[in-house]
Amino acid sequence: MSKDPLVIFTPSGKRGNFAAGTPVLTAARQLGVDLDSVCGGRGICSKCQITPGFGEFPKHGLTVAKDALSGWNAVEERYDSIRGLKKGRRLGCQALIQKDIIIDVPAESQVHKQVIRKRAEARDITINPATRLFYVEVEQPDMHEPSGDLERLKAALADQWQLSNLVSNTAILQQIQPALRKGKWAVTCAIHEPTNKILHVWPGYFEGPLYGLAIDLGSTTIAAHLCDIYSGEVLASSGLMNPQIRFGEDLMSRVSYVMMNPGGDVEMTQAVREAINTLIQQIADEAEIDPQHIFEAVLVANPVMHHLFLGIDPVELGQAPFALATADSLTIPAVDLAINMHPQAHFYILPCIAGHVGADAAAVALSEEPDKSDDLVLIVDVGTNAEILLGNRERVLACSSPTGPAFEGAQISSGQRAAPGAIEKLRIDPITKEPRYRVIGSELWSDEKGFDTAILSSGITGICGSGIIEAVAEMRMAGLLDASGLIGSAAQTGTERCIVDGRTNSYVIFDGTANGGPLITVTNGDIRAIQLAKAALYAGARLLMDKFGVDTVDRVVLAGAFGAHISPLHAMVLGMIPDCPLEKVTSAGNAAGTGARIALLNLKARAEIEQTVRNIEKIETAVEPKFQQHFVEASSIPHATAPFPLLKTIASLPDVSFNTNSGDTGRRRRRR
Amino acid sequence: MSKDPLVIFTPSGKRGNFAAGTPVLTAARQLGVDLDSVCGGRGICSKCQITPGFGEFPKHGLTVAKDALSGWNAVEERYDSIRGLKKGRRLGCQALIQKDIIIDVPAESQVHKQVIRKRAEARDITINPATRLFYVEVEQPDMHEPSGDLERLKAALADQWQLSNLVSNTAILQQIQPALRKGKWAVTCAIHEPTNKILHVWPGYFEGPLYGLAIDLGSTTIAAHLCDIYSGEVLASSGLMNPQIRFGEDLMSRVSYVMMNPGGDVEMTQAVREAINTLIQQIADEAEIDPQHIFEAVLVANPVMHHLFLGIDPVELGQAPFALATADSLTIPAVDLAINMHPQAHFYILPCIAGHVGADAAAVALSEEPDKSDDLVLIVDVGTNAEILLGNRERVLACSSPTGPAFEGAQISSGQRAAPGAIEKLRIDPITKEPRYRVIGSELWSDEKGFDTAILSSGITGICGSGIIEAVAEMRMAGLLDASGLIGSAAQTGTERCIVDGRTNSYVIFDGTANGGPLITVTNGDIRAIQLAKAALYAGARLLMDKFGVDTVDRVVLAGAFGAHISPLHAMVLGMIPDCPLEKVTSAGNAAGTGARIALLNLKARAEIEQTVRNIEKIETAVEPKFQQHFVEASSIPHATAPFPLLKTIASLPDVSFNTNSGDTGRRRRRR
Repeated sequence: MSKDPLVIFTPSGKRGNFAAGTPVLTAARQLGVDLDSVCGGRGICSKCQITPGFGEFPKHGLTVAKDALSGWNAVEERYDSIRGLKKGRRLGCQALIQKDIIIDVPAESQVHKQVIRKRAEARDITINPATRLFYVEVEQPDMHEPSGDLERLKAALADQWQLSNLVSNTAILQQIQPALRKGKWAVTCAIHEPTNKILHVWPGYFEGPLYGLAIDLGSTTIAAHLCDIYSGEVLASSGLMNPQIRFGEDLMSRVSYVMMNPGGDVEMTQAVREAINTLIQQIADEAEIDPQHIFEAVLVANPVMHHLFLGIDPVELGQAPFALATADSLTIPAVDLAINMHPQAHFYILPCIAGHVGADAAAVALSEEPDKSDDLVLIVDVGTNAEILLGNRERVLACSSPTGPAFEGAQISSGQRAAPGAIEKLRIDPITKEPRYRVIGSELWSDEKGFDTAILSSGITGICGSGIIEAVAEMRMAGLLDASGLIGSAAQTGTERCIVDGRTNSYVIFDGTANGGPLITVTNGDIRAIQLAKAALYAGARLLMDKFGVDTVDRVVLAGAFGAHISPLHAMVLGMIPDCPLEKVTSAGNAAGTGARIALLNLKARAEIEQTVRNIEKIETAVEPKFQQHFVEASSIPHATAPFPLLKTIASLPDVSFNTNSGDTGRRRRRR
Repeated sequence: MSKDPLVIFTPSGKRGNFAAGTPVLTAARQLGVDLDSVCGGRGICSKCQITPGFGEFPKHGLTVAKDALSGWNAVEERYDSIRGLKKGRRLGCQALIQKDIIIDVPAESQVHKQVIRKRAEARDITINPATRLFYVEVEQPDMHEPSGDLERLKAALADQWQLSNLVSNTAILQQIQPALRKGKWAVTCAIHEPTNKILHVWPGYFEGPLYGLAIDLGSTTIAAHLCDIYSGEVLASSGLMNPQIRFGEDLMSRVSYVMMNPGGDVEMTQAVREAINTLIQQIADEAEIDPQHIFEAVLVANPVMHHLFLGIDPVELGQAPFALATADSLTIPAVDLAINMHPQAHFYILPCIAGHVGADAAAVALSEEPDKSDDLVLIVDVGTNAEILLGNRERVLACSSPTGPAFEGAQISSGQRAAPGAIEKLRIDPITKEPRYRVIGSELWSDEKGFDTAILSSGITGICGSGIIEAVAEMRMAGLLDASGLIGSAAQTGTERCIVDGRTNSYVIFDGTANGGPLITVTNGDIRAIQLAKAALYAGARLLMDKFGVDTVDRVVLAGAFGAHISPLHAMVLGMIPDCPLEKVTSAGNAAGTGARIALLNLKARAEIEQTVRNIEKIETAVEPKFQQHFVEASSIPHATAPFPLLKTIASLPDVSFNTNSGDTGRRRRRR
């Protein structure tokens, strides 16, 4: 057999000898080379395109003759004439091996191709969809050897694709007979590997696409990405507000709602499921597809949202010992969740880490991989709750911290969500104490030419999460705020923008009252809300550092709202995150959403994160006395106990101290 | 270790040595003795009752001392005082082995107890339910080692009952937290072994009962038995007409309806599912239970009804090659079928044998076990279609034959279904040619005293399937009918009951016209319908005998309508079944329903019938030329080719021959 031609596949390097006349696809399969095929080598799907190499290959010690493969055949001719085949390409199922040869498998012909992510430091996503397409030719019925069409289809899938123990429900039973006859005894099946379920049967060859959704269900917003699960491409992204906000802005107030209103969990479950259905329709409309063609969804959420989405009363999550109904990952039919997708579609829901650290934190861990980091990384994902992960290859710790919605612009006097009209960036001149800012919807700063025109359509309506954080930090740096968090008076600060507001002072950012617009100020109440939120966040991170036995971390990854909009400098000025060289602070964007997308596209990643979560050490902040201590100590700006040797800006903050006003009698400005 | 006490269990004979102090239940479990327990040995369920034997046991060479078991304990005292323990009984989980002992496990303490069936020739049903109850004590949550309540429940089930790979859906997630807390961290789970699904979680100890339904879905009627799946007891039985009759009386007319009316299958599926829901409510009302407590259903049906129930367009079953969508057995959630039972209940549907031989025939095979018969048995199940099985230990053949609904009283001029008022038995005096009959609702014959009073409430309304068969056979034996199936005239037969009816004659059974009642006759059209039906039936049986290579069978089992109501003698006079000694003809009652009940109560029987069905040789009558030949030859009464040496009655039939009338002019009686 040593005379059989040698075939070397690149880039895998796999090699073997095959009898002359063996199709390249067959050789690839036998060697376990990652060469795609949906039609099983029948020249229908064209997914097995390969590039043969001819000539001298000294690296492999091989000379490849011009006739090392069989000639271009009719199937390839037809495919080329209809759809076009790139120069040099052959169909792997049609080209037969004749002599020693080198075969390159281009990226697009690999099943497990990689989607290159935009951020350099992030890993690429390997495509390995949970739902895949399989084309089969099925034996016709024989009344002398009667057997069901389903049994013959399953036999074909076992024989042609080595798929066994497949299951199917009544919907498939209803599809199968017309599909087999319309397809002239050939059909394409969508099969969901985790459950072994046949999800759909199409007559003849169906080339897709199959769609999937990655859903990040937050307390405040719900975001989704629609992907082609074979290519990994994001086709559309959309988001909407979580309608549960009407039951309570933060998680605990929603849990309280259920405690006070029996059956309230059912209302909230309905509300969030309806919102997700709306979101799916919205995103499907944007991508111009039918939601019925979405076969997979991956959802990540914090524990309370996780339970409410699943229809589980979250009341146990509101009291110690914060018991989850289930912590494991879940694979659930979409119909059981009343979600409108393909009727056989499945949801995969990532595991929860602990009663306060949910599937969203697991998704962040999947995206940011602290368990694979050589240096010690602190990952902070801020939403209405903050999820915090700290670790490296050796061990990973996790906790969550109840920051409340202040970082998202809620419970702030002029706060609003990040939408056109919201001030998102802000600087204060340390000399003049005058602010300049940017408003969502325009790239111009307020002191740049054309700003007024640029924001004409929205106006200036409020201040969003990143805006308030920058405002507080800038006020501190400009000497308008003392370390305890008190805003100085006009006399103390030398600017008329500091106005009396009850017993404390407020800082005026924008006064549109003359034209019927808003008066946008930062009040001392706003400062307190931010102080509480940042103290909670810092205390959580600090608690993990205590448990890890460290005083510093090597790097910080900011995710969630943070990653997208908040400047690391300002976060550090505020004392939101522990001290760290600024260049070691990176943004991961919506890491939870990215984690959801990884789990959507790569089945193996699901098993991986399930294992990772099992190994994560869970810290419950609510019952740790040290958390309270850190919290109290972290309320000043920056807080007293944190050394900031690296940040000159912070080190040189003015050492001012203000008092509250004596009464409610000073000069005040009111909104009209 | 040889000094450890010896324990011998009866009736199993299993024995072993156990350390002193071992509970009897523990010993039984280790030896694999069938001793029931739901609570796992906690003295709660009392299902592990045993009877210790004391004194001399020469057969076992054992002397059992009075103190061979530990003394009566507080748990047993309490149980005895509350619920009463039979004299001599102990709780196996409380009684500890001290010395050598003999332990008897009474039938009611065995999980796999047997239900004794009424018919002597039929096997008993071993109880081995697919859904069982398991009581477990679950660890409480620990916020320092967070895990979901579901995961701790599963761990308890694995640890205490060796149940692994359990699955659960959102309904269980919704139940689990309140159940665990209400039950103080002890719950009882219903688990469905075929799917490994947790179906329900009750707080604390739940002792059942669990209910199951055996449903026989016929073309004309739907019958169901409600059983306690642990005891096997039938708690209620009920039936109703198949509402699909409005779409066509026989199967092929329903298939034609779909061909002519696209979407007609959906209508029929809805109709039959609604009827089954009505039937379930009816039977649950009768048994005074909630349909939500029914956890299992087994359904048997012919292929067309099988497909229509599942929502599969049956059109392929109406034309060669009669391809089934699926032939295999099915385990399907009741909700997928829109059937109202426990929301997690499952249907088990027996496998179909072939395109014309359905799950009902498989159920007959399960009940009557031709594959375990030493002698050659012919099993005939007559409904609107006849299923025929022929075989023994060596091989089993099956076919179905399109008898039409005549045997059920349909398409008969005075026919009606078996209900009060219907003539069900009939004899004709061979001398006077006068009929005497019995009517459903009374045990009296029409010539007995008190008959008129007994039937007063219903009157005489028509003639049902068994009645028409007896009428035709009796007419033949009384010389009113010739072998070709023609009814003689009054002149030819010497009775005024033979009246002219168009070109043929009719025989008057009952004339109630004087009092506004019906005129009940047997017309020559009725004779033809019965001739066609019996010829089809006989031809099917005969074809199987040809395939088997035999001319006679050792015994005949009559099932379905046959078994319940038709006399074997008359069936043989008609030539419905092949010749066989009358004492070798037995009735199996509703064998399909019995098979459904066996599959409901015994999980192993499901695997068994699936294997049996795979081995059955399927004969398709529709394409066998010999079937046509047998059919033609079998139309006379009795048919020409059948030798009847054993039945003197048949051998001595009068050798008459009648003609049709010349025109429509003779003496006729019309209904008013």
